[in-house]
Amino acid sequence: MSASDHIPATITRTPLPASRKVYIHGSRPDIAVPMREIALSATRTSSGQSVPNPPFRVYDTSGPYTDPAVAIDLERGLPTLRADWISDRGPYHEQQRAGRTVRRGHGAVTQMHYARQGIITPEMEFIAIRENLGRATLAEQHNGQLPHGIPKQITPEFVRAEVARGRAIIPANINHPESEPMIIGRNFLVKINANIGNSAVRASIADEVEKLIWATRWGADTVMDLSTGPDIHATREWILRNSPVPIGTVPLYQALEQVDGRPEALTWAIFRDTLIEQAEQGVDYFTIHAGVLLPYIPLTAERVTGIVSRGGSIIAKWCLAQHQENFLYTHFREICEIMAAYDISLSLGDGLRPGSIADANDAAQFAELRTQGELTQIAWEYGVQVMNEGPGHIPMHMIKENMDKQLEWCAEAPFYTLGPLTTDIAPGYDHITSAIGAALIGWYGTAMLCYVTPKEHLGLPNREDVKQGVIAYKIAAHAADLAKGHPAAAAWDAALSKARFEFRWEDQFNLALDPETARAYHDETLPAEGAKVAHFCSMCGPKFCSMKISQDVRDYTAQQIDAGLAEQSARFRASGHELYLEANHD
Amino acid sequence: MSASDHIPATITRTPLPASRKVYIHGSRPDIAVPMREIALSATRTSSGQSVPNPPFRVYDTSGPYTDPAVAIDLERGLPTLRADWISDRGPYHEQQRAGRTVRRGHGAVTQMHYARQGIITPEMEFIAIRENLGRATLAEQHNGQLPHGIPKQITPEFVRAEVARGRAIIPANINHPESEPMIIGRNFLVKINANIGNSAVRASIADEVEKLIWATRWGADTVMDLSTGPDIHATREWILRNSPVPIGTVPLYQALEQVDGRPEALTWAIFRDTLIEQAEQGVDYFTIHAGVLLPYIPLTAERVTGIVSRGGSIIAKWCLAQHQENFLYTHFREICEIMAAYDISLSLGDGLRPGSIADANDAAQFAELRTQGELTQIAWEYGVQVMNEGPGHIPMHMIKENMDKQLEWCAEAPFYTLGPLTTDIAPGYDHITSAIGAALIGWYGTAMLCYVTPKEHLGLPNREDVKQGVIAYKIAAHAADLAKGHPAAAAWDAALSKARFEFRWEDQFNLALDPETARAYHDETLPAEGAKVAHFCSMCGPKFCSMKISQDVRDYTAQQIDAGLAEQSARFRASGHELYLEANHD
Repeated sequence: MSASDHIPATITRTPLPASRKVYIHGSRPDIAVPMREIALSATRTSSGQSVPNPPFRVYDTSGPYTDPAVAIDLERGLPTLRADWISDRGPYHEQQRAGRTVRRGHGAVTQMHYARQGIITPEMEFIAIRENLGRATLAEQHNGQLPHGIPKQITPEFVRAEVARGRAIIPANINHPESEPMIIGRNFLVKINANIGNSAVRASIADEVEKLIWATRWGADTVMDLSTGPDIHATREWILRNSPVPIGTVPLYQALEQVDGRPEALTWAIFRDTLIEQAEQGVDYFTIHAGVLLPYIPLTAERVTGIVSRGGSIIAKWCLAQHQENFLYTHFREICEIMAAYDISLSLGDGLRPGSIADANDAAQFAELRTQGELTQIAWEYGVQVMNEGPGHIPMHMIKENMDKQLEWCAEAPFYTLGPLTTDIAPGYDHITSAIGAALIGWYGTAMLCYVTPKEHLGLPNREDVKQGVIAYKIAAHAADLAKGHPAAAAWDAALSKARFEFRWEDQFNLALDPETARAYHDETLPAEGAKVAHFCSMCGPKFCSMKISQDVRDYTAQQIDAGLAEQSARFRASGHELYLEANHD
Repeated sequence: MSASDHIPATITRTPLPASRKVYIHGSRPDIAVPMREIALSATRTSSGQSVPNPPFRVYDTSGPYTDPAVAIDLERGLPTLRADWISDRGPYHEQQRAGRTVRRGHGAVTQMHYARQGIITPEMEFIAIRENLGRATLAEQHNGQLPHGIPKQITPEFVRAEVARGRAIIPANINHPESEPMIIGRNFLVKINANIGNSAVRASIADEVEKLIWATRWGADTVMDLSTGPDIHATREWILRNSPVPIGTVPLYQALEQVDGRPEALTWAIFRDTLIEQAEQGVDYFTIHAGVLLPYIPLTAERVTGIVSRGGSIIAKWCLAQHQENFLYTHFREICEIMAAYDISLSLGDGLRPGSIADANDAAQFAELRTQGELTQIAWEYGVQVMNEGPGHIPMHMIKENMDKQLEWCAEAPFYTLGPLTTDIAPGYDHITSAIGAALIGWYGTAMLCYVTPKEHLGLPNREDVKQGVIAYKIAAHAADLAKGHPAAAAWDAALSKARFEFRWEDQFNLALDPETARAYHDETLPAEGAKVAHFCSMCGPKFCSMKISQDVRDYTAQQIDAGLAEQSARFRASGHELYLEANHD
C-alpha cells in the first residue's frame, strides 16, 4: 500500500448514541462476536416507581470502528480476526506479496468443503452466536421465557448443515482474515449489500474507504466494490484491508480495463489472471455473468430497455463480436477450481435482468435463471459456495414467480436480488420503489438484498445517498425478518414501541435504525431538553394531549377495578404502561 | 372569511416542468376534466431519424392552481365547478351564512342515493373520464390498439353501479362545490390522503392553506384537516373554499374544543352541532369512531401500546367516565340522517388500531372492524356513502388478513388504511416503513392509503415532510395499481422507461413523480447542460460507458442481420432503441 494522501483525513469512529460494543465469547478464546448494546433508561410507572429496562443488543456490522478500545491504523489494516482459524486449516501454497502472506489452497478450502465433512469451523460457531442474538435478547426481554412459537436456537451444527446443503453461504476468502464471519441464507437474518466504487467521473480512494466504513456503520452486511477507474487495484486493497464485512466484486470490470474498454478483446487468459489477482487480495465473492448465453441475447431485442446490466452488456458484445459462446460459461469449471482454492463465493450474475416494468419476468430473464441453476450444480461439485443474483424492475404481482423459480431451478441456493423496483416512475426515490419490492422478496425467501440509493438512474451516490440506501434496505430486511417470524426482529420492535409508549424519548431515539435523524426530527418541533422527558409531545401540544387523556383513562379504570365496580372493564389495566397516541392521525 | 393577514404571501402556482393543463370535455359543456399533459421530445434513432413522441397525460389532483389561465383569489375561493350540478338536483333547504348559500337536502342527496335510482350524475361522468385516462393514454401509446388483457373502459354506468353497490364512494358535500369529483373504490386507481392541521404548538392558517395546495400539487387525492387549535373553524373555511380535493375531518376534535378538552363532558348535542357546523361548511367526509364500544376497551389493556388513535382514546375516556356505551354508536342513525342530507361520506374510524407490531390483528382491533361492518349496513340504509378505516402497525404477513376480513365483514365497502407500518424500528423513516405496507394492502384491494410522513411519532410535518409523505404514497399507490393491472399505471412506467433507454434525460425528469428532485440529483454529478443530451451518464463516465457498449452491440447485430450472417441472432434488433445500463450495479 502506498498513497497515504489517499487516506481520508478522518474516518467515522464514534459509537452510535448510548451504544457500546460488547463481545460474546464462544468455545475458544479467539471467538468473540461483536454486538451493539444500547443502554435504556428506567420505566417510570404512574405510581412513581422506577423499573429498570435491561440494555438491548442488536446485530452489529460496523466492525472495530465503533469500538473506541480498538486502535485503527488504515495503513496496517484491521486486526486479522480469522488468521489463526485459516492457518489451522492449512497447509496452503503461500507467497509474499507487498508484505503480506498470500494463500491458496491445495484443493477446495471452502466452508462448504468443511461443512460437508461434518466440520464446524470457528466461522460457523461465530455465526451461530451472531445470528442467535435475537433469541437471547428476546429471552432477556421475557425474563428468560421464550414466547410460544419461537424457532429453535440457531446452533453451530445448524449453520454447518445449511452450508453443506448449499442453502446458505459464508463469504470468507482465506486472504481476507480481517472479516467478521456472516452468513447468507434464507433461514437466517435477511442481509443487505451496499455498492460502492468510483468511476472516471469521480475517483477517490479516500472517498471509497470512508464510504465502506459509513455503509457498514448503518448496517451493510456486505459491500461490493464496483470501481472501474485507473486505481482499481489500489482502491480494492485499501477496502479489503480495512473491511470488517465480506467484499464482492465484478472481476469483468477490471478485465475490461486491461483491454482498454474493448469487450471484444477480452480473453479467458486475461480474465483468469484478474480472478487470481483479486483472489489473492482477498475478495470474498465474485459476480460472474456465466449465464448470459449467446442464444439468449436476441431475446432482449423486443424489450423496452434491452440489456441494462453492465456485465451483461459486456458479455453480449463479446459473444456477438466473437460469435462464440460466453467464455465465462465455457470456462466455468476452471473458474470454479480457482474460487474453491481461495474460498471465494460465487454470485451468479443476472446479466439479462429486466430494466423496466415492461420487461419483467420475460424469456431472456428466465432463460438465464435456468442456466444459473445448471451452473449452481457444477459449482457445488467443486465445493464452491453459490448464490444467485436476481430481480431488477418487477411489479409486485410478478415478484413471487421469481422466488419460486429460483428455489426450484437453483435448488435453494441463496437468492441475492437487486430491489426489485416495483415501479419506474419515481427516479430520485428508487430507494423507496425498491424497498417495497425488497421487503416482499425478502419475505418470500431472498437471503440478501442489494440496495438501491436515491441516485439510482441519475448519478453517483454520495455519502448521504449511501446512508439513505442502507437505511431503506435495513427497513426492508427487518420487515422481511418480521414477516418470516424471526425472533430478533420482533424483540427489537417491541423494545422500541415500549419505549415510545412510556415516553422514554431518548430510548426511542437510541433504539431507532437512525438515532440521529429521529432525534433531529423531534427537536425540530420541540427543541427544549425538557420536551424529551415531558409526558406530551409536539403532535398535540400540552393542552390537547392525547397521552394525558389516555393516562386519565387508565387511572379511572384502575379506580374502577379497585372499587370492584367495573366488572365489564376488569381487564383494562395499563400494566404499568401509559398510552401513546399517534396524533398525526385521528 | 376575515383575517387576510392569515393568507400566505405566495402560494405555489407554477405548472410542473413541461406540463400544461388540458381539459377533456364530457356530454355537457360544464363537464371539463383536468389532466396534466407532459410534452415529450422526439426519439433520435441510431440512423439519425427523429421520431416524435406524443405528449403523455397523467391524472391531476392539483386543481386550478397549476393552470396559469385561472385567476386565483384566496379570499373568493376557487370557481364553484359543481354549483349547477348540485342546484339541478334541488330543491334544498337554503340559508345564508357569511355571504354563502348553505344547503341541506330534504332527505338523502347522496351520490349513492342517485346511483341507486339509476341516475348518472355529472360527478360520475366526470370521474369516468378522469379514471379512464390511462386507457386513452395507453391506446395513444400503442397507435390506438390496446394490448391484450387490458380491462374494459371505465364507463359512467360502471361508476354509477359501483357507487350504488357501495363498493366505491364519491366524497362530495353539496356545500363544497369547488371540489373536482373523484372516486374511492378498489376497481379504480388507488387514492392517497394527506393529513394537515395545526395544533397548539404551531398554529397558522397560512401554513395550512399552502400545505393543502402543496399536498395536492404532488398528488394528494383527498386532504384531512386535523386542526385542533382555537382557529379551527376559520382554518377549515379557508381550506374548503380553496380546495380542489375532498376534505375530511374528525368532528370529535372540534367537539372536544367546545368542552375545554374534557372528553367526559362531551354530549351528543354538542357533537351534533359540530357535525352540522362542518356539514354546512362543506366537509366531504367525517371520520366517526362509532365502532369503539365499551366492552372492547378492556381488550387493549394487555397491549404494548394501548390505544394510539386520538379519537379512540377520547371515546374510551368518555365511555369509562360515563360508564355508558359510545354515544356515536347509540346515536348512529341520527348521524347518518345528517350526513345523508349533505352527502357527507362516512369514514368509520379505527379507534383501536394497533400502534405497534406486537399489537397487530388483536382482539380489540378486529372487534371494532366487525362493528364497522354492522355500521356500514346501517349507513347504507340511509344512502350514506361509507368507507372503513384500518391498519396502523402490521407486519407484512399479517396484512392480508385485514383486507380479507374487511371485505367480508364490511361487504366490500372501500377500505381506507393508515400505512400500515411494517416495522416500528425506524422513526424518521416511517414514510418508508409504511409505504411498504401501503403498497401491499393497496394491491390486496385497499382503495385509499392515508399517508405517513417522515415526522410520524416525532413531530409535526413541515412542507418538505408533506411532500416526502405524498411522494412515498404515490409510489405505493402506483405500485399497487400496477400489481392490479391498471392500464394507466403500466403506460406511465413504459413511457418513462422508454425515455430513459433513449437517453431523453429531460423527458425522464419530466415524467418522474418528482421532476425537480430527479433533475437535481442528475445535475449534482453532471451539472453541464450538455450532459442532459449526452449519450452517456455519470454512472460510468464517457470512457467506460455501458450505453456505448450496448450501442456497439446493437450496431454489430444490425450488420450481422444485414449480411444475413447471423441467423441465430436474427431477432436482436434494437428496434430504434439504444441500450440503457443500470451502472450503479453490475
